[in-house]
Amino acid sequence: MGALAESIASHVPSGMLSAGLAALAALPNPGELVRKAARLEDELRELLRLNGRGAGAGAEQGGGNRAQQTRERFLRAYERLKDELLKDRAFNFDFTEETRQWVAKMLDYNVPGGKLNRGLSVIDSYMLLREGTEVDEEDFYLACVLGWCIEWLQASALVMDDITDNAYTRRDNLCWYKLPTVGLSAINDGVLLKCHVQAIIKRYFKEKFYFMELMELWNEIGLQTAMGQMLDLITTHTGAKDLARYRIQGYRRIVKYKTSYYSFYLPVACALLLNGAKLSDYVELKNVLIEMGVYFQIQDDYLDCFGDPQVIGKVGTDIEDYKCSWLIVQAMELANENEMKILYENYGKSCPECVAAVKNVYKELDLQDIFLEYESRVYKHLVSTIDAEPDRAIREILKIFLKKIYRRKK
Amino acid sequence: MGALAESIASHVPSGMLSAGLAALAALPNPGELVRKAARLEDELRELLRLNGRGAGAGAEQGGGNRAQQTRERFLRAYERLKDELLKDRAFNFDFTEETRQWVAKMLDYNVPGGKLNRGLSVIDSYMLLREGTEVDEEDFYLACVLGWCIEWLQASALVMDDITDNAYTRRDNLCWYKLPTVGLSAINDGVLLKCHVQAIIKRYFKEKFYFMELMELWNEIGLQTAMGQMLDLITTHTGAKDLARYRIQGYRRIVKYKTSYYSFYLPVACALLLNGAKLSDYVELKNVLIEMGVYFQIQDDYLDCFGDPQVIGKVGTDIEDYKCSWLIVQAMELANENEMKILYENYGKSCPECVAAVKNVYKELDLQDIFLEYESRVYKHLVSTIDAEPDRAIREILKIFLKKIYRRKK
Repeated sequence: MGALAESIASHVPSGMLSAGLAALAALPNPGELVRKAARLEDELRELLRLNGRGAGAGAEQGGGNRAQQTRERFLRAYERLKDELLKDRAFNFDFTEETRQWVAKMLDYNVPGGKLNRGLSVIDSYMLLREGTEVDEEDFYLACVLGWCIEWLQASALVMDDITDNAYTRRDNLCWYKLPTVGLSAINDGVLLKCHVQAIIKRYFKEKFYFMELMELWNEIGLQTAMGQMLDLITTHTGAKDLARYRIQGYRRIVKYKTSYYSFYLPVACALLLNGAKLSDYVELKNVLIEMGVYFQIQDDYLDCFGDPQVIGKVGTDIEDYKCSWLIVQAMELANENEMKILYENYGKSCPECVAAVKNVYKELDLQDIFLEYESRVYKHLVSTIDAEPDRAIREILKIFLKKIYRRKK
Repeated sequence: MGALAESIASHVPSGMLSAGLAALAALPNPGELVRKAARLEDELRELLRLNGRGAGAGAEQGGGNRAQQTRERFLRAYERLKDELLKDRAFNFDFTEETRQWVAKMLDYNVPGGKLNRGLSVIDSYMLLREGTEVDEEDFYLACVLGWCIEWLQASALVMDDITDNAYTRRDNLCWYKLPTVGLSAINDGVLLKCHVQAIIKRYFKEKFYFMELMELWNEIGLQTAMGQMLDLITTHTGAKDLARYRIQGYRRIVKYKTSYYSFYLPVACALLLNGAKLSDYVELKNVLIEMGVYFQIQDDYLDCFGDPQVIGKVGTDIEDYKCSWLIVQAMELANENEMKILYENYGKSCPECVAAVKNVYKELDLQDIFLEYESRVYKHLVSTIDAEPDRAIREILKIFLKKIYRRKK
């Protein structure tokens, strides 16, 4: 029994669990089995939430308010950071009102406006590390600052990636470079956003004993992310010549570098440094977070094809764009000769019939079930790894991350 | 009499100088006067070189060999840096042969291949600062490393600027992004090149006592350069709506941020740090170098229109591109109503007749003479500022810079 199941079992009436398992065993189709299992697990978790931990439910509601307050404080920190940048000597001393307005507009368009998950994760993680001690205004603000630095870095990457990918919309808006007054100047805006990160870190952390480690962390992750993007671009280029080049090992490598480091490891690493820790003491934690990042990206690929565009807020185009998606990687493993032929003929083309043909092969191959199976497996693995973590605060941090992404629909 | 003239006068027969000055005074046209003065100054300098300092002439030839040797050592340092980057744990540990080859090709295409002036300036400056002490292999190599970092930074900016400007060729080659296998992935290559700079600096200087100041210098100059590029793009955008927005103050601001800091100040600042100096002790030096950078850019703008494409290696397109060039700034100051009308009607258009019409106004306005006049004035000003500098090594550094750019034809 996995760690989660064990934990659930200890909170629900035992008869219920075995009845559920018996119902599962009676099912004929393994794909159906996985889907039912997933549904049952959901129901069990719901039951746990309602009956198992009365205090927990109350705390969660209180947590909802706290989350709202945290978000508001986080957003106020953005306004302060923006104002400070615009009043920075380098701007103020020598720059025109026109330039300041441009920078303000560029920041407002690109930096906030996302889900803010990465930035808020710094604060959530830091608060858990500090649990039991009072966090004053100043400490809280510093966590916000590093949170915003991640959002700034993300904005820098998105502004440039949208140009490379010839994207049209981002966060329900026109992409920045698509604005007629912006165009390809957006490339330099992307460069500028990354320079801001260094300037902000210097301003706030120069006197801290962990300043050097902080700078190194950010430089290292900047390099890894750029290398991940390069790997992605090269792989797509070679994959477009021969789909068989899309393999799981390559896929994981791309995701690890392109997404996991900055989205999952960086927020926690920032919180650890803020709390005075040495990162070299947390190598295992890094591995777990990287794994979660891979899981997150696999969900993303799945939702791109099978998610509800109304819910995820965009229409997926991985098939049209020849992307090295988790789905095509799986399909290349499993397809028979005929299916393989269909994939080769239709992948990377934008006519709706071609996309439908690819999706049809995905369905024939039961990729939806294979995804659910993967999700179950990785979830169990993550839960047991987390349970084995000795440090309570770290355990809580990892659980919150996992909770945010497990079975997400958008 | 300016410092140069004084210095020349002390080395040439005195009759010759006064004869020259008398010939000048007899000329009717002030434009012609300036051109003749410039020519005379050239002749005097030549005379000085041949007759004035026998030892100097010898030293110069020796210097020529030394310069060649320095260049060769500098180029070998590039190969070593490239190899080390490709063998870096981050690549080697997890990256594919394909990726390594891509990075190697991208570096070779974009990093060397320019004139290497900025990179070599670090070494030249450092050697002057160290004059009288023996510079061992290791110290020399560290100067090469920082020199290459500037070339790397420059490559990063050029790769991205070429995309923004829709350029076609660079350094007598197709622009990197124009290669069919590259395209807009070039944006990420630009990002990666800048990440390399930080990685290289960390690898070589982490243990040096000036590491923090070095990192700060690079971050600051990265920010200033990106802001300069932004200023340039915004100015061009507003200038395209109304040429009258192109003014000398705005022009100088663009050039200072976009070019002077990284091309002129950065190499000397690196040499100073390598030599153990504190940069805050050299504020005046910074101002002189910034001024030289502005002069350099004004030459660039002049050559774009009036230079020999065979010599400068490209056909200028500032007029077609609506650029805030020094020439249009001057023209907007000086044009009468009719000329102004011609400029408004023809600037920023790519038909050859339009370009010719603009050039014709430039000629009517004697911009060639005004340029020579500016060049004479700034040269004298720089020479006298340099002569007032108490530190001999700093004086020599500044003289070498000035010598490299004064009256350059390419």
